[in-house]
Amino acid sequence: MVNYEQYLEIRAYTVNLCKHLENEDFVIQAEEFVSPAKWHLAHTTWFFEAFLLKELLAGYKEFNPHFNFFFNSYYNGKGDRTARNIRGLMTRPTVSEVMQYRQYVDEAMQLFFDSSAINSQISDLIELGFNHEQQHQELLLTDLKYNLSLNPLYPSVSDREEYPKAETHDWITSEEGIYRIGFQGGGFSYDNEMGRHQVYLHAFSISSTLVTNADYLSFIVDGGYQDHNLWHSEAWAWINNEKIAKPLYWEEIDGEYMYYTLNGIKPLDKEAPVAHISYFEAAAYAAWKGCRLPTEFEWEAASNRFNWGSRWEWTNSSYLPYPNFTKAPGAIGEYNGKFMINQMVLRGASVATSPGHSRNTYRNFFDTYARWQFSGIRLAK
Amino acid sequence: MVNYEQYLEIRAYTVNLCKHLENEDFVIQAEEFVSPAKWHLAHTTWFFEAFLLKELLAGYKEFNPHFNFFFNSYYNGKGDRTARNIRGLMTRPTVSEVMQYRQYVDEAMQLFFDSSAINSQISDLIELGFNHEQQHQELLLTDLKYNLSLNPLYPSVSDREEYPKAETHDWITSEEGIYRIGFQGGGFSYDNEMGRHQVYLHAFSISSTLVTNADYLSFIVDGGYQDHNLWHSEAWAWINNEKIAKPLYWEEIDGEYMYYTLNGIKPLDKEAPVAHISYFEAAAYAAWKGCRLPTEFEWEAASNRFNWGSRWEWTNSSYLPYPNFTKAPGAIGEYNGKFMINQMVLRGASVATSPGHSRNTYRNFFDTYARWQFSGIRLAK
Amino acid sequence: MVNYEQYLEIRAYTVNLCKHLENEDFVIQAEEFVSPAKWHLAHTTWFFEAFLLKELLAGYKEFNPHFNFFFNSYYNGKGDRTARNIRGLMTRPTVSEVMQYRQYVDEAMQLFFDSSAINSQISDLIELGFNHEQQHQELLLTDLKYNLSLNPLYPSVSDREEYPKAETHDWITSEEGIYRIGFQGGGFSYDNEMGRHQVYLHAFSISSTLVTNADYLSFIVDGGYQDHNLWHSEAWAWINNEKIAKPLYWEEIDGEYMYYTLNGIKPLDKEAPVAHISYFEAAAYAAWKGCRLPTEFEWEAASNRFNWGSRWEWTNSSYLPYPNFTKAPGAIGEYNGKFMINQMVLRGASVATSPGHSRNTYRNFFDTYARWQFSGIRLAK
Amino acid sequence: MVNYEQYLEIRAYTVNLCKHLENEDFVIQAEEFVSPAKWHLAHTTWFFEAFLLKELLAGYKEFNPHFNFFFNSYYNGKGDRTARNIRGLMTRPTVSEVMQYRQYVDEAMQLFFDSSAINSQISDLIELGFNHEQQHQELLLTDLKYNLSLNPLYPSVSDREEYPKAETHDWITSEEGIYRIGFQGGGFSYDNEMGRHQVYLHAFSISSTLVTNADYLSFIVDGGYQDHNLWHSEAWAWINNEKIAKPLYWEEIDGEYMYYTLNGIKPLDKEAPVAHISYFEAAAYAAWKGCRLPTEFEWEAASNRFNWGSRWEWTNSSYLPYPNFTKAPGAIGEYNGKFMINQMVLRGASVATSPGHSRNTYRNFFDTYARWQFSGIRLAK
Repeated sequence: MVNYEQYLEIRAYTVNLCKHLENEDFVIQAEEFVSPAKWHLAHTTWFFEAFLLKELLAGYKEFNPHFNFFFNSYYNGKGDRTARNIRGLMTRPTVSEVMQYRQYVDEAMQLFFDSSAINSQISDLIELGFNHEQQHQELLLTDLKYNLSLNPLYPSVSDREEYPKAETHDWITSEEGIYRIGFQGGGFSYDNEMGRHQVYLHAFSISSTLVTNADYLSFIVDGGYQDHNLWHSEAWAWINNEKIAKPLYWEEIDGEYMYYTLNGIKPLDKEAPVAHISYFEAAAYAAWKGCRLPTEFEWEAASNRFNWGSRWEWTNSSYLPYPNFTKAPGAIGEYNGKFMINQMVLRGASVATSPGHSRNTYRNFFDTYARWQFSGIRLAK
Repeated sequence: MVNYEQYLEIRAYTVNLCKHLENEDFVIQAEEFVSPAKWHLAHTTWFFEAFLLKELLAGYKEFNPHFNFFFNSYYNGKGDRTARNIRGLMTRPTVSEVMQYRQYVDEAMQLFFDSSAINSQISDLIELGFNHEQQHQELLLTDLKYNLSLNPLYPSVSDREEYPKAETHDWITSEEGIYRIGFQGGGFSYDNEMGRHQVYLHAFSISSTLVTNADYLSFIVDGGYQDHNLWHSEAWAWINNEKIAKPLYWEEIDGEYMYYTLNGIKPLDKEAPVAHISYFEAAAYAAWKGCRLPTEFEWEAASNRFNWGSRWEWTNSSYLPYPNFTKAPGAIGEYNGKFMINQMVLRGASVATSPGHSRNTYRNFFDTYARWQFSGIRLAK
Repeated sequence: MVNYEQYLEIRAYTVNLCKHLENEDFVIQAEEFVSPAKWHLAHTTWFFEAFLLKELLAGYKEFNPHFNFFFNSYYNGKGDRTARNIRGLMTRPTVSEVMQYRQYVDEAMQLFFDSSAINSQISDLIELGFNHEQQHQELLLTDLKYNLSLNPLYPSVSDREEYPKAETHDWITSEEGIYRIGFQGGGFSYDNEMGRHQVYLHAFSISSTLVTNADYLSFIVDGGYQDHNLWHSEAWAWINNEKIAKPLYWEEIDGEYMYYTLNGIKPLDKEAPVAHISYFEAAAYAAWKGCRLPTEFEWEAASNRFNWGSRWEWTNSSYLPYPNFTKAPGAIGEYNGKFMINQMVLRGASVATSPGHSRNTYRNFFDTYARWQFSGIRLAK
Repeated sequence: MVNYEQYLEIRAYTVNLCKHLENEDFVIQAEEFVSPAKWHLAHTTWFFEAFLLKELLAGYKEFNPHFNFFFNSYYNGKGDRTARNIRGLMTRPTVSEVMQYRQYVDEAMQLFFDSSAINSQISDLIELGFNHEQQHQELLLTDLKYNLSLNPLYPSVSDREEYPKAETHDWITSEEGIYRIGFQGGGFSYDNEMGRHQVYLHAFSISSTLVTNADYLSFIVDGGYQDHNLWHSEAWAWINNEKIAKPLYWEEIDGEYMYYTLNGIKPLDKEAPVAHISYFEAAAYAAWKGCRLPTEFEWEAASNRFNWGSRWEWTNSSYLPYPNFTKAPGAIGEYNGKFMINQMVLRGASVATSPGHSRNTYRNFFDTYARWQFSGIRLAK
């Protein structure tokens, strides 16, 4: 059963991520796929208000009836909402009002925890709220990075270290056979990783390390972005139309590659794992090396035998339901299932992932063009 | 010759327009054709810095060398600049830094005024800076209104009164003959209104009053937006594609028309002149009444015989150069001439126009779709 | 009063324009602003059927009731129609059926001419049909050229000579004063050129010759397309976005400029007048020469003193109604008036204009980007 | 080893598909994803010329050196080509020239067959050419249907019967265990279905019959297109933006559903399997029935126990490589592999599939929006 101390810790962690921001930084949304920091702060709060307090805390009075419209993300079951592409135009409620909203809901949650009404089903829902907020903590960072990256001043907004230590490369081999895949055990997991089931894997090898910036630079220098044989047909059209020839946030200044981090612009660390690449680039790199990306099943089966956690790792598995996957009834059922198409699975975690929010059964997913996450490459063959 | 007291008065007027804003309100840009309030505050300051202080004040040190990039609007002759469509993503410099920038330039301008270096040519340039800032004062208000109009909270950001008093309608007639058109005399005018010249006008009548909201409502109720005979071909495509059936900022709530003002949402004042309509709508209304819009020459010739100043009045004249129009050399020459195509002239002034910034020779201009100015209709026949 | 021989002559001229076409060439439409040859053949026929035969010939039976839908162009008053952008997808009715349609209507028109029902009002309408068909003869050629220009085989589809003889340049001067403008006299004219009226012109000079390909080449070589000072703001954005750096149909092959004509690709004739340029390019060229484009009033006032007719000549006048312009009632009123916005007037005629379809009061008009007409430049100052 | 009689039979089948077409029908391309009939006729011919005759027939002289540019589809390894979206603007070469091209290549192929140069590797390449042409036979029909469907005359262009006989529904069950998937044996298969491998399947049931038009109509009547819970998030945005509320080619006329077939418009046959639906609609229908789509592995494992072949059947499997999939070297390697992303697998065949071109290991694939194929639904649970 969850408790209020856990709640407060997670909630404080979110606010703490914003400590270096100027008030103006909270407002903007550079593209439809990112959200303003202010919105993340409010939406995570709305989650507790909409799914718990309004439903279950007797006498609870909404902070502001307009907020359901402003801060619902994608739950059709919870009513209309601000169009996603204009979240960055909502100057009101202000940052200060959003902080009051957090305070108000935190106090109501304390009442709720104190009310002894929390049974195991409610505890599960609160725990989903914790994990939901942790997911948004990572998005808050990656969205901030994207939102501020268009500013020629290269603002620094976080002291998060983006470069993990280098390791020695090795090939790890696995034998052909039946493997058990999916979450099992007592803690929290999302519905999309449940339904432990059997998968037949043919023999494979997987790299013990991630592809580094130095490795990726070799691919660029070797003309990787110019060789159509390495790319999916759709990818080839994309890199040519969008004139893509390097990872997001790399900038060539006076012949040297620089890299925009949350802490301002820095020289590219050659030994660090490459980050901010799309599935398309990951697949092309693998083809160039004569290798391939692992499936998510291979990844999971081998994951206890290598270090992971600094980059989300693209797999060659589509994000599809496991056998016996079922959606929860009501708005909560919209959490995962409706996204199970046209996206690829990423496994692992990243430097932006919150503590306690990683498991080797975790299925992250993005579309094949997405580059603003800390996404990298692990090879298989 | 201009003086520092005039300078300070105009500069203070700009800042004062923002007194009801929240910090967040300064940041956003809802469409490419509007700018953030923060940008207006900085760009008007940059104008004095770029055209006067950096050129003419010995020993002047730029406040921040990046600001030329951030706050140049459209002067190709003054170098590269932030793409217009992402002005609203520049959270830095912050509002507070922009206010410091204004202070810094104001102090340098005091030195400049004190330096006795100001001859008549420089005085003219400073006076252009005054008028430039006054133009942006009006844009600051109309852009703010647009930027905040998407927020379902209908924020109030100004106490500007949008509804002038009603007047009695009359037809004013003018005789056929040669008229003198264009600015003449000692004060300030823009280059586009200079070059006094002769125009032959045929006899015409012009209304003494503007079309009211009640008048325009009759047009709507009579099916004006559904009758293709009243519309230009391009306009007919536009209103159908964009589903336009009423002026901007009108909202039908519970069967009543409401109207979003800078001071929040209000019932529509039927006796007030209609505002926020496009040229296309003005022309269709005129056709529906069996009348037409006046040319800018007719308007100017008759302007001493009616009241004007609450709405910019669409004319049926294209914005083209007067005979003998010439562009000033250098970046200042980009002020007006390069916009003389595919726009229609508006004459008069509006409730958002700054005091002392109106003349009956003033040529305002917008494209035929523009609706976010306080634009209205005066009929002719 | 018009007669059937005139009718037959004009109708035969249209068909004769297509004598070098393959059946496939009649079908396609490369952009929304052009139409298939097949469509022109049928639409001009529909005009006689819809405005004359169906209204006025007793017992007339429509050739095919679907054809009103297929071949109405833009007359809202004549009902629904094929969306303009898919005219090129209508393989049925076939070319052969369209030719039968022409035959059928021609025979009915003979009956109509024979019926003695033709009074002066009807004769005027038939004469409008003649002129309408002649307008479409020119469009048939210019649309064909555009439609086939994307084919790398450079098909030849006409023996029309595009290069007139060179002439000697001179400046023709006119004095300040009142001029009479607009059509007067007994023959045919469009409603947009009627309403003879007075215009006051200041003194001006106009060139006796058109700008040549050699002249225009100097502009290109001198960096004309790279100097923002020469261009309207909207034009500058356009040439940069569309990467425009030479007239339409010019192609640089092995360091030489070639030019696609209706008769296949040819070396560029340096002494011939430049063709296929936009208003924006005409205006930039004029600025580069330190000149300007004439207004349509200057052009008309001076037109008896120079040769014209090989290129449509861009003027610096917007296409707006003359004083006292009125639209005819009904669908015929849609012919001209609804296009009087956001277009510039061209005066003269071109090598593609049909015999007998030119007058010095003729007001042609296109938008400022249009380049597929035989449009050229005459300078004024 | 293949022989010339087989070649001639397949080639004649293609031409025969066009016997009801007017010349004009061969030209057009209504959207980028379809091609003109003329293009299919030529491209299939080009395949033999480019991969066989030019490479392997001594003394072979290309029919026309331009044709490589016109009729290469997507093989980057074979050089530049007409942009896909303007295939419908290429009136030259004409239909008649394309028919001559077919004749010319057919004669050269006879020489080639007679030359005894054909070893087993070359025979495989020719067989690929056969299968390639058969694939295009189906596309020729489905593209024709789409191209002509915008014509309000509902042209009839084929006597292909689109409605198979109804069958009785049953659930077929399969046990949990390891299944062998992929092509095995002596005949032809594509590279994407090779690499027979083992897959672990959990127990499942699959329907013996396809979803009928009557079934699908119930889904529509029950509000299936209005219930967000049934749809993927991306699908929900799509049906709302595109206003999709019924299968492609269904039209409601006087309260009855009609359906455009290759043989003109017909009343909807309620007992026939639904056709022309997207993956998104198939998945939503399955959700509405409380079922799901089968995976491609389940489909293949159970396929010997039901009839298939009238509709391509959407599966819930992404089009991804089988274990040990490898691309052939050179341009032939572009045939399949580069499309293995963001598409879903369809299994079976359709009424438009050519005789001899079906196998239960065949992996067809389209994106989740595609509706112009004869695509239908088989349920699983």
